[in-house]
Amino acid sequence: MDPRLAAFFAPASVAVLGASSDPSKVGGSVLANLRAGGFPGTIVAVNPHRSVVQGLPAVASIREVPGPVDVAVIAVPAPAVLGALKDCVAHAVRGAVVLTAGFREAGVEGAEREAELRAWLADQPLRVLGPNCLGWIRPTRRLNLTFAPGMPRAGPLGFFSQSGALCTAILDWSREHGIGFSVFASLGNQADLTETELIEALVDDPETRVILGYVEGVADGRKFFETLRRAAACKPCVLMKAGRSAEGARAVSSHTGALAGSDAAFEAAVVQAGGIRAETLEELFDLARALAAQPLPVGRRVVIVTNGGGLGILATDAARAAGLDVAPLEPASRERLAAVLPPNAALGNPVDLVGDATAARYGQALGALGDGDAAHLVLLAPQAATDAVGVARVILGATRGWRRPVLAVFAGGGRVRPGAQSLEEGGVPCYTFPERAVQALAGMVALAERRALPRLAFAPPVDRVGARAHVSRLAASGSAPLGLLEGAPLLEAYRVPVLGARAAADAAGAAQAARTLGGPVALKILSPDISHKTEVGGVQLGVAPEEAAAAADALLARVGAARPTARLAGILVQRMAPADGLEMLLGAVRDPQFGPLVVLGAGGIYVEVLADTVTRLAPLGLHEARAMIDELRLAPALRGARGRPRADLDALADVICRFALLVADEPRLLELELNPLLVGAAGALAIDVRGRLGGIP
Amino acid sequence: MDPRLAAFFAPASVAVLGASSDPSKVGGSVLANLRAGGFPGTIVAVNPHRSVVQGLPAVASIREVPGPVDVAVIAVPAPAVLGALKDCVAHAVRGAVVLTAGFREAGVEGAEREAELRAWLADQPLRVLGPNCLGWIRPTRRLNLTFAPGMPRAGPLGFFSQSGALCTAILDWSREHGIGFSVFASLGNQADLTETELIEALVDDPETRVILGYVEGVADGRKFFETLRRAAACKPCVLMKAGRSAEGARAVSSHTGALAGSDAAFEAAVVQAGGIRAETLEELFDLARALAAQPLPVGRRVVIVTNGGGLGILATDAARAAGLDVAPLEPASRERLAAVLPPNAALGNPVDLVGDATAARYGQALGALGDGDAAHLVLLAPQAATDAVGVARVILGATRGWRRPVLAVFAGGGRVRPGAQSLEEGGVPCYTFPERAVQALAGMVALAERRALPRLAFAPPVDRVGARAHVSRLAASGSAPLGLLEGAPLLEAYRVPVLGARAAADAAGAAQAARTLGGPVALKILSPDISHKTEVGGVQLGVAPEEAAAAADALLARVGAARPTARLAGILVQRMAPADGLEMLLGAVRDPQFGPLVVLGAGGIYVEVLADTVTRLAPLGLHEARAMIDELRLAPALRGARGRPRADLDALADVICRFALLVADEPRLLELELNPLLVGAAGALAIDVRGRLGGIP
Repeated sequence: MDPRLAAFFAPASVAVLGASSDPSKVGGSVLANLRAGGFPGTIVAVNPHRSVVQGLPAVASIREVPGPVDVAVIAVPAPAVLGALKDCVAHAVRGAVVLTAGFREAGVEGAEREAELRAWLADQPLRVLGPNCLGWIRPTRRLNLTFAPGMPRAGPLGFFSQSGALCTAILDWSREHGIGFSVFASLGNQADLTETELIEALVDDPETRVILGYVEGVADGRKFFETLRRAAACKPCVLMKAGRSAEGARAVSSHTGALAGSDAAFEAAVVQAGGIRAETLEELFDLARALAAQPLPVGRRVVIVTNGGGLGILATDAARAAGLDVAPLEPASRERLAAVLPPNAALGNPVDLVGDATAARYGQALGALGDGDAAHLVLLAPQAATDAVGVARVILGATRGWRRPVLAVFAGGGRVRPGAQSLEEGGVPCYTFPERAVQALAGMVALAERRALPRLAFAPPVDRVGARAHVSRLAASGSAPLGLLEGAPLLEAYRVPVLGARAAADAAGAAQAARTLGGPVALKILSPDISHKTEVGGVQLGVAPEEAAAAADALLARVGAARPTARLAGILVQRMAPADGLEMLLGAVRDPQFGPLVVLGAGGIYVEVLADTVTRLAPLGLHEARAMIDELRLAPALRGARGRPRADLDALADVICRFALLVADEPRLLELELNPLLVGAAGALAIDVRGRLGGIP
Repeated sequence: MDPRLAAFFAPASVAVLGASSDPSKVGGSVLANLRAGGFPGTIVAVNPHRSVVQGLPAVASIREVPGPVDVAVIAVPAPAVLGALKDCVAHAVRGAVVLTAGFREAGVEGAEREAELRAWLADQPLRVLGPNCLGWIRPTRRLNLTFAPGMPRAGPLGFFSQSGALCTAILDWSREHGIGFSVFASLGNQADLTETELIEALVDDPETRVILGYVEGVADGRKFFETLRRAAACKPCVLMKAGRSAEGARAVSSHTGALAGSDAAFEAAVVQAGGIRAETLEELFDLARALAAQPLPVGRRVVIVTNGGGLGILATDAARAAGLDVAPLEPASRERLAAVLPPNAALGNPVDLVGDATAARYGQALGALGDGDAAHLVLLAPQAATDAVGVARVILGATRGWRRPVLAVFAGGGRVRPGAQSLEEGGVPCYTFPERAVQALAGMVALAERRALPRLAFAPPVDRVGARAHVSRLAASGSAPLGLLEGAPLLEAYRVPVLGARAAADAAGAAQAARTLGGPVALKILSPDISHKTEVGGVQLGVAPEEAAAAADALLARVGAARPTARLAGILVQRMAPADGLEMLLGAVRDPQFGPLVVLGAGGIYVEVLADTVTRLAPLGLHEARAMIDELRLAPALRGARGRPRADLDALADVICRFALLVADEPRLLELELNPLLVGAAGALAIDVRGRLGGIP
């Protein structure tokens, strides 16, 4: 960690610039919070107009402080911030938290002020959090550098947020839910420290076991991605991003001036880096609590143990909806359970201990199940005989040291609270109703799967030189939009299979093209005046090369008879597409923040209508491409569900990687799309190609 | 309401059979709860072995009670339940709550006991809740007939559950969340009273404003649907059903012996009746609180007011994801806001009052916005200047009497709780984070839209006699599976358009068929040995009738040359399908509980893979068919999104209604499927038909 950043994590001395005696002012409130939190280091009040502030002797300037200052909190008026920071540099302060508002978020004047600040900061030795932020909290150091009262509980969650208002809400909420933090950081306008640098610092912070963030926009997408990838390999990373909808993104930009950026690109970066995106704040913290306390699962199996049938069913439904596996128990487990449970217990999965289950029965059931490959979800409803605290004690005892995660649901309110609290304190996360526990478990599964994914670089031999030369030729000829005939050589240079096609001027040319392509071909009329080719007999499928001349003549005659006035430009001769296979789409675009992206999805009109697409940053490796395929809703069809032939997914993954490599290698390719890309048992084959080159005058 | 049912709602006297002095027993706990709840009527303890129970004089049998008894609670051992109920009948008791377990849920012996109970109950004058239930609570009468301690708060929610364990959890949880009930009923095994009868009774109960239920299975699907339809016209009905997944359904049947039934049919029945299905218990109660306190919205517009940008963005994202409309404010509203808000406030939608917003500023903003067509969502984060109680007071004052709903989000914990409580007590539901409030609002919108839907019967002139005769002919010929040629006359009798087709034995026959059909036709080889027709030149599209003979000859020759050994059965001659249009599927099946269902969805492989289908009970009206179309994910494509031609949705709705009428009229049609059903600007046209007849030897 940058030693200047380290100052924020463990300062020995803190100065408050703009310290005030009035606790309703930011500079008064932050000083009061710092002292009330019990910070054991040196606290210096800086105020040019007073010699005593809140009972502390004050100095007029930080330059006058006799000893060193590690971190300064800036709560002076906006026009004085830059001067205060200069004073800090003069006093060799390593870090500053600028709480003051009135920068980019506040009109033209504020934007100018922030630009000036950023320009000055570029070559300074101190690091700045903010401006316009709520501040910084380090509970284990009893360090509260915010104007929000009350120290949150210490814990393993390193949290940062680009919204200050959310910080105040989360701080207040977390105190009631036993959520503990290693760091609580409000990033504000990020004139210096960004979310990416904070992630980097949290990786190095030994107190942080899980990294959490609320993000509205990312300044440098590729750097964010690379950093997150390194972070996620060490610690679970859970991120939430606002601005998913167009309307939300609009609100983001009016809120902080941050560009929300492409939401799909952000999600791709998080997933590809091995992190996870939460949909709501409750999800963020539900998952974080589980990650902080329990090991990651291996596989998707979950065993559900309950004293209430209805609860078990809700958990089962939620688990199936989340893609978890609630398979029946194997016979050996059932026998062990049968030996210890009453005859009316259900031994399937869920295991129903029935309503009069005692703590001892929970213990016997967990003992009989034992630690295995599955995760366990233990549910309790406060029925007549239920001893929630006893059950909690038994769960903690029976599952201590298990290598697979155990999550609990104690459904209810006051009657189960003491038990739930014992569980939480003992390291088993406990939820109020089944669905949220299942969602947390599903998040753990996703993280485990992403973490286990080998991230091998994909570097096959390709004809880079040929592809580049082809693009240069197209660019020289001023051809910005690409079609099938222009795009095919490019794809072939990267060995992406494209269905062979030739344009022919007449019947003889068609015959020649059919012989060159080989095998039966399709003939299609080329005419600017005919859009529905089949209706005028303008399509003939399955033509053998030796019949092609006659078939082309017949086709031209049919079309001529049906549409005497249409201009006929010739005939497209194309190999016959395989009869089976799924029509997919493989596309590429360039995101201003995240660079080249590849998109895989259902082809045809379904790509737009059903939005069954998955996005990744290019380039990517084969395992990542396979994971990409698996995320599609249509993945089961590709894997041979419902009697469909199983598609060659290795071949598809190979095509995705080659395509991604091509667009990553060739920055002049602004867009490229294979649609349809026919995917079947014989592999993946591009039937049509469209694209656009950039940088062409 | 059946006067025997009315006894449960307002009994003057209650007897506890099996009353015990031991509070750890069911018969002891229910008596203690009844007395602790403060029931003002007569309480009679019945125990054959004791003369005093819990300080009350006890009688040996209910037959010895001197005065009348309205409701009896049965807590005797299972073998004695039937005798106890006979005693109740002898004493003219009108209602009994049987808490005792050991019936259908408990093995073969229990199942026999329940069968005996049901057989006896069939012609008795008393109504029974249970057996194997938690009991019945009526808070306004201080009537707690359960063995769960503590009276829930009184309120407008009439709740029933088919799971007892969930009841105990919800009771415990509701006390902390200010959830109030008019009725709280655990249905148990439903030997007599079912969920359907309870819904009927709750409609008549003036204290119940919202009907809520947790359902695992429905005994009589059609009766449930008809009852719910009447109920939903009077009061909002929110239902949750477990057993959505196959694994969950399996757990349901091992839990209560109830058949979970088709989940899609249940959902169709709830939606079509004008109710709403909640996905989780939290959703159920979040929505119920909103419905209990606020009017239904008109339209989907929502205006968001916040003091924190991040909160507003989260609300906006959630609203868009839920299909709500977060359109920018009109200029007049912006001007009114600008006149009262500081210059750094955002006047779009969300309206951002910025972090230092006072209660007065909230009041000014709400006053400037005023009641209109939109719903309002008012968000608050506990920032430095925030006065949550003051803001609550201002919200209640400013929005009193508004005809459109106002929901609040006070994000946080202890700092916002007093404000949130004032809001709830004042009739504005308040949530902890934006997403749940938005989901509740979206549920209100769905309910309002379903309630506004005209439910006019669809009764066009159709040839019922002809259709019935055609089915009889097919049945007589032993033809159980139907194809295009068998199904078409049936559909034509109900004026469902089917693309004309004929089978021809040879070229002459094909020419004759083409002339009969008229216009250009498609020729397709018929052969049991050829599956990929196009690959052998076995398909010719766009053939004019006068060319059909020659084209058929050429086709037969091409196929003969390509596959000399294939058996050729002739040629299918079919009108050319329109070139544009979306391939959809319209199908019908019979559910054992809900009867004939129609299913509309994306056609081709996508129907299975993407599961974009909507189910309804047949028959149905035109408006319901339009709502069905609107629920599809591909609805935007049908409405002309992204430059697609707009499909004729009136024609599609008409086809859906005619198809549904056919399957409702003809019980011998077990299955019928139009796939593809081509839907475009020219209407809806069945291209292929498959079906199956039942009752054929």
